[in-house]
Amino acid sequence: MNPDQALLILKIGGKLIEDDHQLDRLLGRFADLPGSKLLVHGGGKEAERLSRRLEIPARMKDGRRITNAETLKVVTMVYGGLLNKKLVSKLQAVGCNAIGLSGADGNTLLAHKRVGGDTDFGFVGDIDQVNAALISQLLKTRLTPVFCALTHDGKGQMLNTNADTIATELAIAMAVLTPVRLVYCFEKPGVLADPEDEQSVLSHLDSTQYEYLKQTGAVQAGMLPKLDNAFRALQHGVSRVQISGPEIFERENAGTVLSK
Amino acid sequence: MNPDQALLILKIGGKLIEDDHQLDRLLGRFADLPGSKLLVHGGGKEAERLSRRLEIPARMKDGRRITNAETLKVVTMVYGGLLNKKLVSKLQAVGCNAIGLSGADGNTLLAHKRVGGDTDFGFVGDIDQVNAALISQLLKTRLTPVFCALTHDGKGQMLNTNADTIATELAIAMAVLTPVRLVYCFEKPGVLADPEDEQSVLSHLDSTQYEYLKQTGAVQAGMLPKLDNAFRALQHGVSRVQISGPEIFERENAGTVLSK
Repeated sequence: MNPDQALLILKIGGKLIEDDHQLDRLLGRFADLPGSKLLVHGGGKEAERLSRRLEIPARMKDGRRITNAETLKVVTMVYGGLLNKKLVSKLQAVGCNAIGLSGADGNTLLAHKRVGGDTDFGFVGDIDQVNAALISQLLKTRLTPVFCALTHDGKGQMLNTNADTIATELAIAMAVLTPVRLVYCFEKPGVLADPEDEQSVLSHLDSTQYEYLKQTGAVQAGMLPKLDNAFRALQHGVSRVQISGPEIFERENAGTVLSK
Repeated sequence: MNPDQALLILKIGGKLIEDDHQLDRLLGRFADLPGSKLLVHGGGKEAERLSRRLEIPARMKDGRRITNAETLKVVTMVYGGLLNKKLVSKLQAVGCNAIGLSGADGNTLLAHKRVGGDTDFGFVGDIDQVNAALISQLLKTRLTPVFCALTHDGKGQMLNTNADTIATELAIAMAVLTPVRLVYCFEKPGVLADPEDEQSVLSHLDSTQYEYLKQTGAVQAGMLPKLDNAFRALQHGVSRVQISGPEIFERENAGTVLSK
């Protein structure tokens, strides 16, 4: 696969958005990439800050925010408003014709409110359907979609969905139409063999090795959902999946390249 | 002009968004309208409430919010996030394929920070350019754009722009491509000859009569920018301009029809 001909789906983590200098650099490099591309962003810290200022207690379960009605308002404002428009306006400034989307916009990500289990996650959405045809049309119009971590249920309710999961589901749905390269870009340089040692980046990881690392407890807990997402993408037709720090823009093979 | 063949640009005021029952009714009727359409929304009260909760003082000048950096964050969150996604998800629920946009999205509304005069309005944008070609493409894709009161300067800065002005500039730009019908829909039944009497709706108003009403002081101050916008649209090629309450969905000629 020639990576220039694949659709790049880049997910950037919340911490990368916090640092304006690093963000500008990253968006500049992203804007310069040739070919079709699509950005997905998280944004945890800013939502936490606003929740604190509004005195709304934050509750987490397995690394996922429990979203009551008040928290949903906060994330809709922060993810869909503040951060999404910040990224879109910054991309416009470097010549990338970005268009911000939540899953409600163009009905791009249809989800249902998560039910079952012993925890009520509140307004959290599990994705049922990706409007790949519309996303494809936007890409053909030479727009660069910028997705925030919001979906909708088709009945007028916005829902909060993990940004890694959104990137994964977008990648799987788009892979039916075109080769897709999926990159989860975050503050670490890749998957670490030793969570304490940033030099211990695994350059490759396959599912057998992953199972072994899970059993030995070598992978930090916060990485598990990301890796589960990454392998799910590979198993569902995504051509190339990588987990990397911002070095991905310097070196094509930076971070950890995953294989089945 | 057959109104079904014109592009309808409907601006809905902040107060109509406040009442969920009325809003649902209005969006249902809007969704049912045949043909191309585009929604523009204000949203003052919600932003004021959030500003109060965050203890940011609101400052106004001539009916326009003075937008410092903190207030810009608030309106970006409330207009671009909370309200825009509320409207988009509600429209999706009634079968209208809405897509929320700020002026940064798709570079649809390029503006510059207002300068000059004796008041610093802060991060307020005056529109320089409307990307009518892209809006036209979105409409051809059978999407219904939903614009909030945000623009950008093309250099990475979001700006706050009055929603009536956005509706007007969109209408003028789109009128070059297609016949446009522009409706400013708000909580009053139209332009009133006597601001105290809701029965005194003027069914028609031309620019000569408007000048006369301005001189006699019969038009309430808050209506002046809206009427200035309305006449500006007529003078720049917009086929039909109306100011009305939600009755516009019951009667084609509801409210006040303006003429040059």
